[in-house]
Amino acid sequence: MPDYPNPFLNKTYLPLLVVEDSDVDFEVLMRSLKKLSFQPQIYRVEDGDEALDFLFHQGQYTDNKKTPRPALILLDLNLPGTDGREVIVQLKQNRSLKMIPIIVFTTSSNPQDVEFCYQYGANSYMLKPLETQAFNDSVNILLAYWLETAILPSSII
Amino acid sequence: MPDYPNPFLNKTYLPLLVVEDSDVDFEVLMRSLKKLSFQPQIYRVEDGDEALDFLFHQGQYTDNKKTPRPALILLDLNLPGTDGREVIVQLKQNRSLKMIPIIVFTTSSNPQDVEFCYQYGANSYMLKPLETQAFNDSVNILLAYWLETAILPSSII
Repeated sequence: MPDYPNPFLNKTYLPLLVVEDSDVDFEVLMRSLKKLSFQPQIYRVEDGDEALDFLFHQGQYTDNKKTPRPALILLDLNLPGTDGREVIVQLKQNRSLKMIPIIVFTTSSNPQDVEFCYQYGANSYMLKPLETQAFNDSVNILLAYWLETAILPSSII
Repeated sequence: MPDYPNPFLNKTYLPLLVVEDSDVDFEVLMRSLKKLSFQPQIYRVEDGDEALDFLFHQGQYTDNKKTPRPALILLDLNLPGTDGREVIVQLKQNRSLKMIPIIVFTTSSNPQDVEFCYQYGANSYMLKPLETQAFNDSVNILLAYWLETAILPSSII
């Protein structure tokens, strides 16, 4: 990938929170991340309750040092327990956490899901392609855009 | 650019609103758009007041047929009159217009601008690189991500 000049990018500190219950999808994501020009810190949680615990420093995530504020959140929608829609609603109602970009990354092509996510403040919505090469391409452009080109608010906090 | 499968993408109807007072920057954007696998409809306004008129169908934009709802807004920040920050605030307070993704595309690297834009609901923030090749690269990845990969709410309205 090209190395886009981004004066804000602190490549040594870019925590990425992945909310993903599928081991297979998470592995594909990890493989794509290895191709980046730098390695972000990856934190994975497997459902919405765990995501909220991580972000609000609750439950097993009360130690702030081990639980950094993510620069970006990749959010699956259909999760066990509290699902991705509720995670969006709760984060975007919080004055501080609403600043973290949320990228919905899901197999759901339900128009109501697309509408709900944008309505409640998700920053972007992406479909997970079923075919492997298309999945890889989508992940690559997602990461190239959000981690190597866009300016994230975390860079300036 | 790769042709990402996007079942929602209606390539014959993808109005893009560009809020840009610089003729030079607009020309570069137009050249990059020509490289896409399809041609979105481009609408350009040159300041914040005109942007609000376009989106709220006011002033010279009362004819809805000539003034479609944009699928995406590319927004410069520093504009004559009503500036980009105020455009974000007004759009994101409107229940319908808040759904349209706003990509801030600006020369401002002021951390307060980054924070303000994400706080008030801009979907993404990008710096305009000063150097031509870097500018082209940034525009290319912006368009590839938002127009060829992400699912936009306009697709489902």
